Amino acid sequence: MSMPEVVNLARKFGAFTEQWSPKIVGELNGQEVRLARIGGEFVWHAHDDADELFLVIKGTLRMGLRGRDGTTEDRMVNEGELLIVPRGTEHKPAAESEEVWMLMFEPAGTLNTGTAGGERTVAVLERL
Amino acid sequence: MSMPEVVNLARKFGAFTEQWSPKIVGELNGQEVRLARIGGEFVWHAHDDADELFLVIKGTLRMGLRGRDGTTEDRMVNEGELLIVPRGTEHKPAAESEEVWMLMFEPAGTLNTGTAGGERTVAVLERL
Repeated sequence: MSMPEVVNLARKFGAFTEQWSPKIVGELNGQEVRLARIGGEFVWHAHDDADELFLVIKGTLRMGLRGRDGTTEDRMVNEGELLIVPRGTEHKPAAESEEVWMLMFEPAGTLNTGTAGGERTVAVLERL
Repeated sequence: MSMPEVVNLARKFGAFTEQWSPKIVGELNGQEVRLARIGGEFVWHAHDDADELFLVIKGTLRMGLRGRDGTTEDRMVNEGELLIVPRGTEHKPAAESEEVWMLMFEPAGTLNTGTAGGERTVAVLERL
């Protein structure tokens, strides 16, 4: 058996510079652990079958959330804080600080743009 | 719809002092996000159907791992590092520093002592 190895988050974040292009750094129970660097704003989107966890490692994430009645609210997620966005909930991640480093947990294969699609979709995620 | 709320890890860790008694702070995709404070050593155990992720928030976790050939190895997991222990792998968590704060991600309902059972089993985990 090959024994599992420790993953150092800072070292993994140091291994890429692209923004909005999540990297897979681990898999368990059909879920992926992803790291992303983000700057500026992303697009509104939702995932029909995937709850998504965002844990902020550096900076401040501003997550826009849209309720079923169409009203929107923002959540500020600082370093050492996490937010779980339930499946079906429209959301729009944005970097409130210049750059944000975040760790995500979600089902393997979840598209970054969900059902919205579009040019910011990353079809195949790199593994680090 | 009720909008999801931000979870501050330090504040959650500050809400309890018990060691080896994981608290549930979030759920997604049939998985639980758990926080545990640990000191000293736990028991060797394995989970038949659950991969387990350990992310160290404070201190140093020493994870004993036993291979199928019976040999053991330790992994030191420092703050900002994570380790995924695959299902079926015997492991023994221990605090290398005086106390360790760790975040765990694993299937809902996973027993802390796995198939080993015994007096250190926490049958029902508290939610914070």
